[in-house]
Amino acid sequence: MSKERVFATYHIETPYDLEFAAKVMAGEQSTGTFIAVPGETEELKDQHAAKVVSVEELEQVSTPSLPGSKPPKGEVGPIKYRRGKVVLSFPLHNIGPSIPNLLSTVVGNLYELREISGLRLMDLELPIAFLEKYKGPKFGIEGTRKLVNVYNRPLIGTIVKPSIGLTPEDLRKVVRDLAFAGIDFIKDDELNANPPYAPLKERVKAVMEEIDRVADKTGKKAMYAFNITDDIDQLERNYETVVNAGGNCVMVSINSIGLAGVAHLRKFSEVPIHGHRNQWGAMTRDPYLGMEFTAYQKMCRLVGVDHLHCNGINSKFYESNESVIKSVKDCITPMFDGYTAMPVLSSGQWAGTAEVSYKSMDTVDVMHLAGGGIIGHPGGTEAGVKSMIQGWEAAISGISIEEYAKTHVELKQAIDKFSK
Amino acid sequence: MSKERVFATYHIETPYDLEFAAKVMAGEQSTGTFIAVPGETEELKDQHAAKVVSVEELEQVSTPSLPGSKPPKGEVGPIKYRRGKVVLSFPLHNIGPSIPNLLSTVVGNLYELREISGLRLMDLELPIAFLEKYKGPKFGIEGTRKLVNVYNRPLIGTIVKPSIGLTPEDLRKVVRDLAFAGIDFIKDDELNANPPYAPLKERVKAVMEEIDRVADKTGKKAMYAFNITDDIDQLERNYETVVNAGGNCVMVSINSIGLAGVAHLRKFSEVPIHGHRNQWGAMTRDPYLGMEFTAYQKMCRLVGVDHLHCNGINSKFYESNESVIKSVKDCITPMFDGYTAMPVLSSGQWAGTAEVSYKSMDTVDVMHLAGGGIIGHPGGTEAGVKSMIQGWEAAISGISIEEYAKTHVELKQAIDKFSK
Repeated sequence: MSKERVFATYHIETPYDLEFAAKVMAGEQSTGTFIAVPGETEELKDQHAAKVVSVEELEQVSTPSLPGSKPPKGEVGPIKYRRGKVVLSFPLHNIGPSIPNLLSTVVGNLYELREISGLRLMDLELPIAFLEKYKGPKFGIEGTRKLVNVYNRPLIGTIVKPSIGLTPEDLRKVVRDLAFAGIDFIKDDELNANPPYAPLKERVKAVMEEIDRVADKTGKKAMYAFNITDDIDQLERNYETVVNAGGNCVMVSINSIGLAGVAHLRKFSEVPIHGHRNQWGAMTRDPYLGMEFTAYQKMCRLVGVDHLHCNGINSKFYESNESVIKSVKDCITPMFDGYTAMPVLSSGQWAGTAEVSYKSMDTVDVMHLAGGGIIGHPGGTEAGVKSMIQGWEAAISGISIEEYAKTHVELKQAIDKFSK
Repeated sequence: MSKERVFATYHIETPYDLEFAAKVMAGEQSTGTFIAVPGETEELKDQHAAKVVSVEELEQVSTPSLPGSKPPKGEVGPIKYRRGKVVLSFPLHNIGPSIPNLLSTVVGNLYELREISGLRLMDLELPIAFLEKYKGPKFGIEGTRKLVNVYNRPLIGTIVKPSIGLTPEDLRKVVRDLAFAGIDFIKDDELNANPPYAPLKERVKAVMEEIDRVADKTGKKAMYAFNITDDIDQLERNYETVVNAGGNCVMVSINSIGLAGVAHLRKFSEVPIHGHRNQWGAMTRDPYLGMEFTAYQKMCRLVGVDHLHCNGINSKFYESNESVIKSVKDCITPMFDGYTAMPVLSSGQWAGTAEVSYKSMDTVDVMHLAGGGIIGHPGGTEAGVKSMIQGWEAAISGISIEEYAKTHVELKQAIDKFSK
């Protein structure tokens, strides 16, 4: 049998000895059972057991992160909850290069063990067989740049607002305005997919007519990410609706259709897949539960996400700027020596967030989305787009935005309205 | 436009006024944006905004459940985190009867709001359009009983152990033994799907040959839930492999293929779908994050899960018995006046857990799975199965198992080995 293995890194918290807890984890997710059964031979264990690769002690705490853990019997005095970094490895031949079965194996029942009071999947290292199977992003950063013909700066984009409720005719006007403004990228809100009051088919028609008309006049065709999130068969029909109308990008809520749904879409999609990560908070906001973005984004990229949402600097969400920066760096760190996804910065963004984004992330390979920051710009949408580009020009040149704003009125207006 | 609405109940925790936090939630998941934008008319809000239906105060705490919340500006003194029950309603026409888009709407970005320090989706009430679209379990309790011809007691089942590593020939022997023992139901472990060392095709062949041979002799055909969890297209091929060999049940890891994956399977599956909920712990173990099982199981049933795992009484996991009991009751509470799924009790189960299960759950409409409790029975597998049935006979008759064991040797042996 193959010697290849999957490596999974966890942070755990346990009232037990860390080594013991790590062994319980390995047993639960491979050959263990609560009572010895016939057929559980040494040879079978040797071939199929998960192995504890390393255990590294971290701090101790006196209060458990999660309820329901059972301390060892006979423990006296106040219970200590030991935190540690645990690496397990699993034989690839237990799983095969299958993301759904990988999830059942590296995550599976671990969060439910009573021996643990906290557990988080931090990172994954996968054999090359996964690359051969899933192929990764079809476009990634390079392919996306080529489609919109924008280089050496971020793609400037926006989310159609209001998020929900525009009729196809209202949407037509919004898109016309944005396309004429010279924007690189527009996306649907994740709340707006194929709603009865404005079916995708009608939205696609209105949007693409406007985008194509502007492209004919200006030579610039904006990329529009249509939210095609839906049941599996409808997903395929929605995709066809988009590409048959000349659409050049589709968006999905990754956690709504599952990684398996994204992998399915990747098989037939001939346009970039814009990945929205709504619902991700449930998987990550408790620091001793769920998953670290580092592990999550690797799986997203593997199944074919070309653009991946990472929140933005000073966003309206709970996430710290440090965490956002780390997420962006994760997405642009090559996987299997290739495979990058374009990180998407959004939420509370405007021209003024370019500087700190560039300084902290040290890249222009991002999509920078502003909703109100563009559409709500006092000089109008075109000025909004210009202000964003100027914000990045300043950042890349190492000039403060206040200084740059002296000769760039749109940036000045943005600062006056949005800076707090 | 339709007046139908989706109702979602949450438990939240917030450093703000509860009413305010509820409004932020409603805005985030419908017509809100961080700055007023053109097109955000009163009429649009009236038609498309989510509404706060009710806010009920619960307790206050001094420590936030989740990191990253930002207390109101100017708050002095120690911060209070207010807990409450919030009901929101969403217009159905924002979403359509689509589970993936329902998730983006009722969950979406809520967990990431910095105005909240805890949020859990507790329950969902869905318009009838969802029933018309998704159809629910094709078999449920009644259909499953009919297939195995077992009435007035739980279905007694087991999980093939060791979980992983048996060759198809080893598996053949295990299944032969179980089928001759008169067991109702056998399932693959969630770790074992279509692994390279024992491809599903070979496993199906070995298993079905044994089950059919025993059925020819004894007239009893055990139901075997083959784990077909995989990528979407492979899922369909795996399904075909099973039914073409005469298989009468398929199993999936629900969270590995997503609810969309299950709904897809439901469209073509002509056998019951056995739903394993591994990875569910990540969604539920933090009481102020993720989802309550009540909400989750409704969606699982809607997309077609016929049997749903609920852990078991005195299991090896962290979950309390109260929670397990509530989960079982959830699954057998009719939805849309129909639609029940058969709850599956497993983990650490043996004949002795029948009594407390029956007393607390007040139903025999469960699948009772024992791994070691059957295969590890000192009298062998057949005695193991008998002991489980005897445990339920005692429970249903209101006789203590100790008393019943006096005249039932298999139960006696089980008590001697497994009771602690």
